[in-house]
Amino acid sequence: MEFKVSKELIHQLEEHIVQKNDKELEVLLNDLHHADIAEILDELDFDEATYIFRVLDSDKTAEILLELEDDLRENILSRLSPKEIAEELDELETNDAADIIGELSQEIKAEVISEMLDVEHAKDIVDLLRYDENSAGGLMGKELVKVNENWNVLTCVKEMRIQAENVSRVHSIYVVDDENRLKGRLSLKDLLTTSTKTQIGDIYIRKLNFVNVDTEDVEVARIMQKYDLEAIPVVDELGRLVGRITIDDIVDVIKDEADKDYQLAAGITQDVESNDSVLELTKARLPWLLIGMVIEIVASFVLKGNEEIFKLHSTLIIFVPLLSATAGNIGVQASAIVVQGLANGTLKEFSRGYFTKEITVSMISGSIISLLLLGYHSIMYQQYLVGFAISISMIVVILFAATLGTLVPLFLHKNKIDPAIATGPFITTTNDVFGIMLYFGVAKLILGF
Amino acid sequence: MEFKVSKELIHQLEEHIVQKNDKELEVLLNDLHHADIAEILDELDFDEATYIFRVLDSDKTAEILLELEDDLRENILSRLSPKEIAEELDELETNDAADIIGELSQEIKAEVISEMLDVEHAKDIVDLLRYDENSAGGLMGKELVKVNENWNVLTCVKEMRIQAENVSRVHSIYVVDDENRLKGRLSLKDLLTTSTKTQIGDIYIRKLNFVNVDTEDVEVARIMQKYDLEAIPVVDELGRLVGRITIDDIVDVIKDEADKDYQLAAGITQDVESNDSVLELTKARLPWLLIGMVIEIVASFVLKGNEEIFKLHSTLIIFVPLLSATAGNIGVQASAIVVQGLANGTLKEFSRGYFTKEITVSMISGSIISLLLLGYHSIMYQQYLVGFAISISMIVVILFAATLGTLVPLFLHKNKIDPAIATGPFITTTNDVFGIMLYFGVAKLILGF
Repeated sequence: MEFKVSKELIHQLEEHIVQKNDKELEVLLNDLHHADIAEILDELDFDEATYIFRVLDSDKTAEILLELEDDLRENILSRLSPKEIAEELDELETNDAADIIGELSQEIKAEVISEMLDVEHAKDIVDLLRYDENSAGGLMGKELVKVNENWNVLTCVKEMRIQAENVSRVHSIYVVDDENRLKGRLSLKDLLTTSTKTQIGDIYIRKLNFVNVDTEDVEVARIMQKYDLEAIPVVDELGRLVGRITIDDIVDVIKDEADKDYQLAAGITQDVESNDSVLELTKARLPWLLIGMVIEIVASFVLKGNEEIFKLHSTLIIFVPLLSATAGNIGVQASAIVVQGLANGTLKEFSRGYFTKEITVSMISGSIISLLLLGYHSIMYQQYLVGFAISISMIVVILFAATLGTLVPLFLHKNKIDPAIATGPFITTTNDVFGIMLYFGVAKLILGF
Repeated sequence: MEFKVSKELIHQLEEHIVQKNDKELEVLLNDLHHADIAEILDELDFDEATYIFRVLDSDKTAEILLELEDDLRENILSRLSPKEIAEELDELETNDAADIIGELSQEIKAEVISEMLDVEHAKDIVDLLRYDENSAGGLMGKELVKVNENWNVLTCVKEMRIQAENVSRVHSIYVVDDENRLKGRLSLKDLLTTSTKTQIGDIYIRKLNFVNVDTEDVEVARIMQKYDLEAIPVVDELGRLVGRITIDDIVDVIKDEADKDYQLAAGITQDVESNDSVLELTKARLPWLLIGMVIEIVASFVLKGNEEIFKLHSTLIIFVPLLSATAGNIGVQASAIVVQGLANGTLKEFSRGYFTKEITVSMISGSIISLLLLGYHSIMYQQYLVGFAISISMIVVILFAATLGTLVPLFLHKNKIDPAIATGPFITTTNDVFGIMLYFGVAKLILGF
């Protein structure tokens, strides 16, 4: 039952655009959801998309604007006058409008705001602009339903009806005191099931979760997930109710955070997608390739310095890829578990217990791999002392990789750097350098070189 | 304002357990949210946790059960009688109860169901058990508010009040016909702002999103995200309303999916966390280490076979780690972008346009890296032909890695295997083998070996 963009529809629309059949365009698009129209516009070129955008009503285009790919939105906004942008913003919820304004240049921003018709709405949006976009303040919207603890239910219901007109989804009815300080909430269910004769002060629920304007977005996400909340109120430093965050925005935070971690692990530095341009994709990928290159040049020095020994015992060199891959895999595994532990709160900082466990796991895996390798090397090459040297070096390298893989993300986290960086090329290439160094070091000791 | 488990609290609780101070335990825990109590129980040993579990009321313990770590939940359930488990289930929403029952063995399952007091509730749960857990049917709950299109608003409001008693959160009021076929919805906002004298058939919204019982969970997540839904109704093959899925369950699907992709990319095969046992962690990590080992043993053969040439031109061998790392990084980057493209729908299958773009990006990156390497090698080692051979081999290997990195996830996806596997050790180690083969192959050609 979900809408799918078809080639026929795109073709039809392009025909109507050429012929300036605005009526037909409206007929084709009017019944579609704004998210679907955005999907269609993303398939068209900028001129065609802008043409359709101008044909549609601003109550529809405002929502479409939010769903567009960044480059198309930027392009369309650059073609609209401040007055036209203001019309779009008048239709949007405060947090969405603030997001759009945040993308405009400083001069246009002021002009757009001054052109807005709904002054209260504009004030709310301006208020939201001062918060960091990764904080609760940056996520929250102003649309909420609140009642005073001193009202009776009659006043309350009357007031709520007025307030609900401006709120697309009523999640909770918040209760405040005369100073607008958050006191508690009324549940929608209570509203449906309680008699209308009751006093607010007597029926509201005093316990509720809330966050502060400067709580970090990922923290808000964690709290809302933990307590299964669909909306959470936001208070300022004085405990006054200033906004609310809804779960749909939190879903975006969760998705973005997961995507970012995944991309960092894959050695991609910016938020790119398969439909971005060659330039954007290259810019996002080249940095880690170059960093990896520089680190691996150090590895080439280490190998050069050990030329003598691997010329004598040539099986040493042929297992370097195995050594690198194993060290890399162990390091990334160790880091990934730490990164996820930090994200979901099961791990908070360095703990000796956790470190011991990680070393135990690596010791077990390392021993199994080393024994298999010793057996394999002995059968294949019959150089028992070299095989022994390779196996022991392998264990040492694995333990080192596990240590680095565990400590680096904890160190990054402690220094407020995203620990997910540690699961990317950085840890694998660094492991290569130290791994090869240790490998030949231990082998030399054993072979008495 | 969020609750944090403190060492003092844990200590206090342990004291009270030893002294069997049930009253004190209740006082300490009564005001806490069930998610917080679950966090506390996870910190205690199984015996202590079970003791507290028995002290608390079943309306609280039922919710706690859902939040516990898997092993503790399993342990507690194994100590409860079928009747006790049935009491917990009577308190839970149908989908949560079905999840718990799904964890029980076949014999106990039947006993537990027969012990349930609320027969309607039990029927609903049994009904849910027959759906695949990764489908809409497996995610949905039976708790919803629905009204008949033929009712008038008076009957409707009365009926809704009764139904709302069993529903903790009212998201939407669904409208059905006499055959229980889904027709549309009434919004909560309408309920607050419309006069109570209206006929349902005249006011309900006919357009609404829904999914089928066998829609895949990730697809449900995609639809709910796209259309910003907080709940979606589920219909059976005949279009009859059989349940609804709420956003909190979808948040879990999104999180789980992201975690799984991240773990696959890091070479971890099962869903493990930092607080799992050494055995579980080893079981999740060893398989990819062993697969990597086997593949890298093939790489050792390739190196062995090229011993002659790298003994003659020793700088060839010292850049093998750089070659491997670059090929690995390029491959993982390419795969990760494809995996994310498949997940968010910007990429659906092999497309020549996308493949050309990927090859262009890799060609640019490859050329930059190769030129830098050529310059570096020429300055350091003054063997210009060898340097040239290394640079050209590098470009070939990079293009190969990009091709493999792009095609493997698309191939896996087409064959219904999770494409995220391609971003893990498999692609990096396979790239090593082919990369080293190509590297020496091209070098031999150029050096006329």
